[in-house]
Amino acid sequence: MNATGLVVEYNPFHNGHAYHAQQAKEQIGNDCTIAVMSGNFLQRGEPSIIDKWHRAEAALREGVDLVVELPYVFAVQNSDLFAKGALLTLDALGTDAVCFGSEQGSIAPFLEGYDAMEQYKDLYEETVRNQLDKGLSFPEASRYGYEQIGLTSDEFDLRKPNNILGFGYVKAIKDLHLSIKPTTVQRIHNDYHDEEIRHTIASATSIRKELLQAGTMTQRAKSALPESSVHALQSYRERTSCWHSWEHYFPFLQYRILTMSVDELSEIAGVEEGLQHRIYETIRIADSFEEWMTAMKTKRYTRTRLQRMATHVLTHTKKEDLLSLQQLNEVPYVRILGMNALGKSYMRQVKKEASVPLLTQPQQFEHSYLTIEERAMDAYLSSLPPSLRKERRKREFQPPILPKKM
Amino acid sequence: MNATGLVVEYNPFHNGHAYHAQQAKEQIGNDCTIAVMSGNFLQRGEPSIIDKWHRAEAALREGVDLVVELPYVFAVQNSDLFAKGALLTLDALGTDAVCFGSEQGSIAPFLEGYDAMEQYKDLYEETVRNQLDKGLSFPEASRYGYEQIGLTSDEFDLRKPNNILGFGYVKAIKDLHLSIKPTTVQRIHNDYHDEEIRHTIASATSIRKELLQAGTMTQRAKSALPESSVHALQSYRERTSCWHSWEHYFPFLQYRILTMSVDELSEIAGVEEGLQHRIYETIRIADSFEEWMTAMKTKRYTRTRLQRMATHVLTHTKKEDLLSLQQLNEVPYVRILGMNALGKSYMRQVKKEASVPLLTQPQQFEHSYLTIEERAMDAYLSSLPPSLRKERRKREFQPPILPKKM
Repeated sequence: MNATGLVVEYNPFHNGHAYHAQQAKEQIGNDCTIAVMSGNFLQRGEPSIIDKWHRAEAALREGVDLVVELPYVFAVQNSDLFAKGALLTLDALGTDAVCFGSEQGSIAPFLEGYDAMEQYKDLYEETVRNQLDKGLSFPEASRYGYEQIGLTSDEFDLRKPNNILGFGYVKAIKDLHLSIKPTTVQRIHNDYHDEEIRHTIASATSIRKELLQAGTMTQRAKSALPESSVHALQSYRERTSCWHSWEHYFPFLQYRILTMSVDELSEIAGVEEGLQHRIYETIRIADSFEEWMTAMKTKRYTRTRLQRMATHVLTHTKKEDLLSLQQLNEVPYVRILGMNALGKSYMRQVKKEASVPLLTQPQQFEHSYLTIEERAMDAYLSSLPPSLRKERRKREFQPPILPKKM
Repeated sequence: MNATGLVVEYNPFHNGHAYHAQQAKEQIGNDCTIAVMSGNFLQRGEPSIIDKWHRAEAALREGVDLVVELPYVFAVQNSDLFAKGALLTLDALGTDAVCFGSEQGSIAPFLEGYDAMEQYKDLYEETVRNQLDKGLSFPEASRYGYEQIGLTSDEFDLRKPNNILGFGYVKAIKDLHLSIKPTTVQRIHNDYHDEEIRHTIASATSIRKELLQAGTMTQRAKSALPESSVHALQSYRERTSCWHSWEHYFPFLQYRILTMSVDELSEIAGVEEGLQHRIYETIRIADSFEEWMTAMKTKRYTRTRLQRMATHVLTHTKKEDLLSLQQLNEVPYVRILGMNALGKSYMRQVKKEASVPLLTQPQQFEHSYLTIEERAMDAYLSSLPPSLRKERRKREFQPPILPKKM
């Protein structure tokens, strides 16, 4: 049996995700689809609206066959390290291909783009450096770099978020010499950054905004979500009275920062030189996470980068915890979150040859990444009342979920 | 002008405290009374029911002339270090005498007790060591020691809490060769550990219990409190909707512990060898502070000791932060919280000769103890909503309060 990987966050799982999974499935006949999914904290440095178990369950009910967790250390990272972690995870599972959404839906420009990047690396890097020196943020600076080496045409525009992610996957495959075939399907309708639901295929951002503002499931949100995702969101809400957003964590973040020393703060991942003083000055006068972000933001630091830093403060993840990532060319383990019958037979097949432990429970293995994962879980659960916290905590140490199709 | 010191917590200021202050005042004619008061965290390792400003205001309105803060590093400590910090503070203010409440109301037994202790030090220490080896807590073991050297008679019983504190003051004066005269007044009516209000003079414990259970000012509590203290408690409650207890801090404590490493935890003050593992095992399954304390308690570790440890975790106070205390023979500064007209003229008199800075605002001076104080304040305020937190935080950096008598 072959397998195709999807790199996902499913925050929450929406119609666009269902379409993507279905397209990937069609491409490979009836073989296995594997989603590598961020856990409770996401690439943009945010808590997920519902926990990873509920998101995995929705995905499995909608036809994804196997859901594995992208470890926190890779998930809350820039697109290069995020892609590296995801592709190494797929590689450890013997995945044959990866399928991602892109603006134009053909893979050739990505491969050509990679060659162009290799060829004009020096020019690209010099341009980026110059723009960084002028005080621009890295994403802004890299756009100038892409322009300089011709990667911003109508056919292939590396300034578009989904192309950046896709390019990251191609780059990871090439750089790490993985035998995974990159493929892509064209994204339809929604714009990644859309703030409002306009169509049955809408951005996750717009769906979260709708849900968090309403505090309840609305017709409009329902129109953009498959049934199983509506169910997952509703049952999590019923269980916990909560859909998570940064504001729930602000008291903990503020408490944490104000009761640690400047030296300790500068050991935290993402706290770049000098930033620690700015953090202290602004956190004590902010009344909310939004207010704090506004006070922190500058041309050089994007909101995403600041949110990732805030996530690392909240989860107490240090620079030294992430040192090993750059050198890594194999993930130390793969954590299985859930699977259906097909996913289960794929697991049986791959288990014999797997070069790293495939964990169905985190206690099966000891690794610093799992310690960080547990801290991240505890940070995520801190916004719930104690008894729920304990109940949700237990879930973490139980076997994968095996839901039936709805 | 002479001055007499009172070592206090005023949590809250009650009729017994008013009686004590009045007796001290009578002893010295119309001279100045100075209360050295714990800040927002107390000797038994608890948050104070209302903040230090409101407690200081009540005391000043009830006739205490000057209120200064016992730094956190001394306040949340065993009785020896607590007494040392308090007496060194009074010494820095040129205080002539200290007046404390005791069971029998005469000073001679304390002085004789000190001599006995000096004479039979070896026997006392050996007895204590033996009992500790048997697994007893320090307070329990020291009771055996006192018995052994005859300090548990009807006339002078060092097993009684107020005698222990008073003896600590006498010991500090003698050991540090301070020119402060120890005096005592007899305590009336209440028992320190009484859990219920039975009389107009009741224990602070019983008053807090009554208030926290009712969540509002009751007639019974009023009967044990002077008017200005009723006012302080009510106005704090109106302002913040809060009377502080450990339960308010449990989410923060649990979050903190579960997102720090075992190594980091063992650096915290009061986390004795091996205790860090017990902390991890118990905190993750506890639903409340009470439940956690029950799970943590053993014969060796008293509740008070565990609460002090929890306070240090909450405020992130490390062993290394307290290393300097033992060697100290002068406080680095004295922080003035409030005064009346008499207190003000005493301040003018003493300011000229004071050997350490007398601070009316914490920004006037830099010291590691003040950094710890600020962290403790931020930890204390973490249980309030953000806007109130900011408002109460501002108060910390303003000049002392100067209330009129009610």
